[in-house]
Amino acid sequence: MLLGRVAGTLVATDKEPTMEGLKFLVIKQIDVDESETGGYVVAADAVGAGVGEVVLFATGSSARQTAMTRDRPCDAVVMAIVDTWEVGGDVKYTK
Amino acid sequence: MLLGRVAGTLVATDKEPTMEGLKFLVIKQIDVDESETGGYVVAADAVGAGVGEVVLFATGSSARQTAMTRDRPCDAVVMAIVDTWEVGGDVKYTK
Amino acid sequence: MLLGRVAGTLVATDKEPTMEGLKFLVIKQIDVDESETGGYVVAADAVGAGVGEVVLFATGSSARQTAMTRDRPCDAVVMAIVDTWEVGGDVKYTK
Amino acid sequence: MLLGRVAGTLVATDKEPTMEGLKFLVIKQIDVDESETGGYVVAADAVGAGVGEVVLFATGSSARQTAMTRDRPCDAVVMAIVDTWEVGGDVKYTK
Amino acid sequence: MLLGRVAGTLVATDKEPTMEGLKFLVIKQIDVDESETGGYVVAADAVGAGVGEVVLFATGSSARQTAMTRDRPCDAVVMAIVDTWEVGGDVKYTK
Repeated sequence: MLLGRVAGTLVATDKEPTMEGLKFLVIKQIDVDESETGGYVVAADAVGAGVGEVVLFATGSSARQTAMTRDRPCDAVVMAIVDTWEVGGDVKYTK
Repeated sequence: MLLGRVAGTLVATDKEPTMEGLKFLVIKQIDVDESETGGYVVAADAVGAGVGEVVLFATGSSARQTAMTRDRPCDAVVMAIVDTWEVGGDVKYTK
Repeated sequence: MLLGRVAGTLVATDKEPTMEGLKFLVIKQIDVDESETGGYVVAADAVGAGVGEVVLFATGSSARQTAMTRDRPCDAVVMAIVDTWEVGGDVKYTK
Repeated sequence: MLLGRVAGTLVATDKEPTMEGLKFLVIKQIDVDESETGGYVVAADAVGAGVGEVVLFATGSSARQTAMTRDRPCDAVVMAIVDTWEVGGDVKYTK
Repeated sequence: MLLGRVAGTLVATDKEPTMEGLKFLVIKQIDVDESETGGYVVAADAVGAGVGEVVLFATGSSARQTAMTRDRPCDAVVMAIVDTWEVGGDVKYTK
């Protein structure tokens, strides 16, 4: 999984029917120092994450292992909202 | 999923038989500011996207989770036409 | 899928038994302007592509969705020989 | 698999229910000379790795092939603690 | 698949139980001119490759399509020892 910040939302009316009901989040990737890496991904939201929150997202076939995304053409999912992490004994982020 | 703009189409007569009937789109990848990243992908079209439209595409095994691409040697699919997205409260794109 | 030009062939006698009979192609990746990107892949040939031809290849689990590659430790397959593509209304390549 | 050093831990209370009970590790990727590459991944821990240890991690669908991660939206798992490796006859790392 | 040279071996005693008995190889990636790309991977050995040999390796779920790696948390496997390849009519490598 990688870390990201929910930057915004995306709307797509005309889509594969099985994607109906999914909420798309625009995620900016961040590194372990909480700085943006320049990368992004559009992910389905499985946990009700809000704009500005720091989240974990999974990609590939693992993105389909939620009730919301199973068997759908979805290759990225937000599967956790991050509370905190530490690196080298230092707390790097707290919600 | 990533964002892309449909740049054109591709024709391949001589192909794996299960790929018959699929429409190939040449997609230029774009970032959340709608600028091209320099990357591209050739994707199957599951939603009837037209040249110039901004779309979402999925890759890997998730690209096979549509009626059109299931069990086929297809690793990229356009699965949504984008209406709009916003980042940091600003609308970045509207169809 | 990505575009590539068949640059040559590869022979490997000592291999996983299920790979017997597969033809390995050395593929140089090209972009939509037909210039080489510097990347390459060794792919199984599912369509009888010849050296010099421009092809589409699929990677990951999608590379196993052909009669020739199913259930084999093969992560790249040439699944189409390209006739032509266009970008922005201009024909960029014709076989 | 790639090499990494366990840099720290991550806590996420609000997550996909099937992820309950998994321990998240922040892994800094290292190369064969044991220097950091700048990359990182957040991985589930399948082997009880401690902070500071050098580990192997697997990504993608392979990350779900442990009793702990099966059928979960988890795309990275620490599946081994490294004792030693050698390159060109030289021992590069010993635990 | 990609080309690599077997640079060395890796030992990990404490690992996911299903990984018992697998031999881990440290593979330095090479390009079609046989020069190192700077990348590496730690792969399971399915073909008895020796240090110094040039091999093909497969990644992702395809790395689990061998008797040795099936259903294991293994995302890279050496599945062939290369005899020779040619590019543009020139033999680039012979074992």
